[in-house]
Formats: sequence, C-alpha cells, structure tokens
Amino acid sequence: MMRMNNIIKAIMGSDNFIITSHYSPDGDNLGSSIGLYYGLKKLNKKVIFVLDDTLPKNLSFLYEDIKIYKSEEIDIDDYILISLDCGDKDRLCCSEEIKKNCKMLINIDHHKSNDNYGDLNYVDFEASSTCEIIYDLLNNIDKKIIDKKIGNCLYTGLITDTGNFMYSNTNSSSFIMASNLLKLEIDKENIIKNLYQNNPLNYVKILGDTLNTLEVIEEKIATIDLTCEMFKKNAISFNDADGFVNYARDIKGVEVGILFKQKESNLVKVSLRSKSYVDVSEIARKFGGGGHIKASGCTIKNSLENVKEMVIKEVLEHV
Amino acid sequence: MMRMNNIIKAIMGSDNFIITSHYSPDGDNLGSSIGLYYGLKKLNKKVIFVLDDTLPKNLSFLYEDIKIYKSEEIDIDDYILISLDCGDKDRLCCSEEIKKNCKMLINIDHHKSNDNYGDLNYVDFEASSTCEIIYDLLNNIDKKIIDKKIGNCLYTGLITDTGNFMYSNTNSSSFIMASNLLKLEIDKENIIKNLYQNNPLNYVKILGDTLNTLEVIEEKIATIDLTCEMFKKNAISFNDADGFVNYARDIKGVEVGILFKQKESNLVKVSLRSKSYVDVSEIARKFGGGGHIKASGCTIKNSLENVKEMVIKEVLEHV
Repeated sequence: MMRMNNIIKAIMGSDNFIITSHYSPDGDNLGSSIGLYYGLKKLNKKVIFVLDDTLPKNLSFLYEDIKIYKSEEIDIDDYILISLDCGDKDRLCCSEEIKKNCKMLINIDHHKSNDNYGDLNYVDFEASSTCEIIYDLLNNIDKKIIDKKIGNCLYTGLITDTGNFMYSNTNSSSFIMASNLLKLEIDKENIIKNLYQNNPLNYVKILGDTLNTLEVIEEKIATIDLTCEMFKKNAISFNDADGFVNYARDIKGVEVGILFKQKESNLVKVSLRSKSYVDVSEIARKFGGGGHIKASGCTIKNSLENVKEMVIKEVLEHV
Repeated sequence: MMRMNNIIKAIMGSDNFIITSHYSPDGDNLGSSIGLYYGLKKLNKKVIFVLDDTLPKNLSFLYEDIKIYKSEEIDIDDYILISLDCGDKDRLCCSEEIKKNCKMLINIDHHKSNDNYGDLNYVDFEASSTCEIIYDLLNNIDKKIIDKKIGNCLYTGLITDTGNFMYSNTNSSSFIMASNLLKLEIDKENIIKNLYQNNPLNYVKILGDTLNTLEVIEEKIATIDLTCEMFKKNAISFNDADGFVNYARDIKGVEVGILFKQKESNLVKVSLRSKSYVDVSEIARKFGGGGHIKASGCTIKNSLENVKEMVIKEVLEHV
C-alpha cells in the first residue's frame, strides 16, 4: 500500500504525464494505458499516450476517441513517464530520449519477470492484470473517478488477460472488480463482440486448414501445422493467425499441444502448451526460446519436417 | 423474497426429498441439482437425485461421488419433489408416478418460458443460472452451508450458463457469487479442464472438416455444413458435434451464422445465430422451429441442398 501511496502522491503532485506500454500491444496493455489516460484527464492533468507500434484493429473501439502519439511527434519536458504492463525497460514502446528525459519513471505492472526498473515501482504479480492495478489505483485516488468510459478500458484488459476468467490468475478480487464495473453499465456486449465475434473470414478458413493437419502422438502429444502455403492460399499474414495451439492441447488425454508455424521455408515458430504436469518452458529453452511453465515458444531455423522431428522427440522425453 | 422464504420453510419442515431436472442434462442442471443435493444432506435431510437420462461424460467430475437414481429404482413416499432448471413439467426427467405422488412440487428455475407449474415456485429469469438461485437459497438457509464441494457444483453451472461470463445474462451478482466461491478454494482449474480441455480427438477433426465448408453470402450470412458423410468419416455421433455454429456468426461483418447439420439424407437440423439485429427465432418459426431472438433452430425434412436454398433465401429477407 505504501508503494501505491507514493505513486499517488507523485501523480497528484505533478501536471505533465507521458504514458506508454510494451511493443505488440494487447488488451491489458491498451486497456490499462487508456483507462489511466482518461483517469488522469479527469484529474485535469496533461497527459499524452505514446506507442511506437501499430495497433490491433479488434481493439480500435478502445482508442478511436483519443490520439495516440509516436515518439517523434512530441516535444515536452518536466514530465513523469508512466510505464504500464511492461516487464522490461528495453521493451518500452517509446524513444530512448523520452525514457532518458523524464523527471521520474513510474513502473506499474503484473509480470513476474519485472525487475523494478522504475524510480517508483508497483509490481504485483498476483494481480490478474495491469488493469486490475489501475482499477485499485484510481479507486484509491477517488472512489468516483472510474466512469463507464474508463470501465470499458479496464474490463477489456481484465477479460483478455484472464481469458474470460478462465486462467489461473483470476482472483476473487478480479470478480469484485468485474461486478463493480457492470454496475457502471459498461458496454460489455460491445466489448465481447469486438474481441470475439469479429474474426476475419480468412482466419476461420486457415483455422480449418490447420485443424486438418492434426496428429496425435502416443495419445499425449497433439500437433498442428501452419505452413507458408496455407498463409498464401488464405491471404492471411503470419501474425494474424494466432491462438490456434489451444485446439491441440484441449484434446482429451493430451498433455502437450504443439503448433508448428512456418514463417519461411527454413524458419519455424513453435508454440507449446501443456495441460497439467509438463514444464514446456524447459523444452522451449533447449531450442533457444522460453516462456511460462504451461505456455512457451521458440523459433528454430530448419525445415518444417526437421523441426517437427526434433521438437516431438524432445517432448516425448517429458510426457 | 417471500417466495424464497416459503420454499425455505417447506424445506426446513420436511425430511424426504427427490430432486430432478430436465432431459439432456447440462452444467447448470447438474450443478444446481447436485449442489442442492449436498446442501440438503448437510441439513440432515434424506435426499435422492433422480434423472432418467444418460449423463454427459465431461461433467462426470460433478457426479462421480453420488448415486444418481432412475425412477424405477426408488420407492418412497411422503416426499417433496424439487424441480431444478426445468421450464416445463413435461420435460422433467422422472416418471409420471414420481411427479404424481409427491406431497409438494417445488419449481426453481431461471427460464423465461417457465409457467410456474409447481405448488411453490421460484422462477427468476433475471438470474444468470439456476445455480445462482441455489446459491442464494442455500445462503439464506445458512451463510456457512456452502462449502468447497457445493461451490464446485454451483460454479460449474454459473460458467456454463453464462458462457464464461460472456453472455448478456451475466449480472453484477454473478460476479459476486464467483468471487465468494473462489474464496472457498473451489477446484476452478479442474472444472475448466474438464469442461473445455477435454475434447474428443474426432470432435476437433470434424470441426476442421466443417470449417472447410464455410461460405459467406452477401457478406452478411455465413454458413457451415456438417454432412452424414463427415459424421461417418470421423466416427462421431450427431449429438457429439455441438457448438460449431458460432464460428460462422463470429466472422467480421456477418450478422447471421447458420449451421446445416444433416441427420439423415433427407433430414437437416438448422441452427441460426445472429449478432445484432436479426430475430432468428422468427425465421426458425417459419420452418416449424423456434428459440431465442439471437439463437434459434429448426429441423427440416428435405435434402441438404434444398434446405440450404430455402433457409438462405429466407435469411436474406432479414439481413
């Protein structure tokens, strides 16, 4: 609580803020950033949100009303830089100049790997999401500050980072937060529609092609492939075919699900998911990757065929 | 509240109970039945759960510790019959004799179509689930009665009937209930694993085949097919390939998703889902079916080809 109070004091005692987050922005990242942005605006602060990356279209409902700046567009001084949902200062999605020139860096995050790189740090890896921390922070500043607009942002981060309350990071407090946000009459239906009912046609088509490659090995391992050919056939880009690996893991009896995603003829991204007892981060590390115990990945320079053989051989040692 | 108090009085003043629910048991149905079963046991009541149907295997974690009776196995009198999660007395999944011989019928449900067929009725169609009503009922009897075991049952019904808190029936109170159940250290991970990470291999294969049939008509309608041939090829039964229609609806720009599921060469089950403005129950009714505004269905005796033509023509009038 003292850590949070120090951050509140710093916020209340200053006028100019730049908010930023990590590369490849996701729901929690944009939700917490834009939620805090609106909160600071309501406190009559000057605040700029900077993000030197492209933004996911399915989250455009969050940012259509605000200007998101690129680093080169801004020229202010005497500002506090607030970093949200980013475990690593090097991954902060703004220029080195902005990082260097701030009068203070406040680091608010829920990633276990965060090394407290800020001048003030609030890193709670038991929080479901950075949005849950921002919810507490704003409530601690003023119980009435969170309105429907801020609520929409925070709810988006909460449900994307908890997988609709399915992941194990879902806390009792996450549900209290959700309950209170619903009372603000947030646009829950619209959020759900934007997040989950808005798939590009070719996304569904390439999912079909991917599932047709399904193979089960010794009943414990399930693999699916996404080849360069499939990307070409379905006119969909590498980054837009995401989240398929769960279909492999979620098969009865399967412990490890693997997606082999071919980026180039000799470059394959491997996603590994386990259900109960296999530490897939250990497997990913053997191939130069990493991640979490039940969700990891690595990228291997070799043919799809060879990569599959190597990885499956390794996974077989663990199931 | 008076209605609930009358039910509580009736429960506290009696010793013998039979609990039953509707045919084709689902998560809310079994969750509320078994949750109340354990609750009544803790109140030292004699209680029997009767269900004259086969039970879904993915919910076996709920019922593996209790005996579920068939109507013909029981022979008691002076009992109260409690009907849970069933909108229609004719769909109650026990014998006519059991219905006829009870000294009182208590009807607890959340379906809008429920016609209050009980001697005592608690029908709240604003409740997310019957489990949410049982949660309130048990808490009103004794704040300490709900333990981890009962919590597992009630949480299962809550998340299956709200689609992991995504459907519009999710209330602020649903989240409070979820928050309180998490405090009881329910087996959330295990519930999620059983419900969503336990698909038969052939289920995933036939999903792939189904997605390969995807067609989009005038950018507003998406159709997918499940043919007799696919069922045969993938060795999966008609009832076990469920829930695919959402893949059609959840495409960007699509308003109506349709699944054509061929039961016999001349018999097709049609599932219709809309996203925003089309009342698909109206369309289903034209073909002798019915359902909800955004989720309806009908079964048509004709070839797959003809059924598709007829239904698409009708849907085109509405988009």
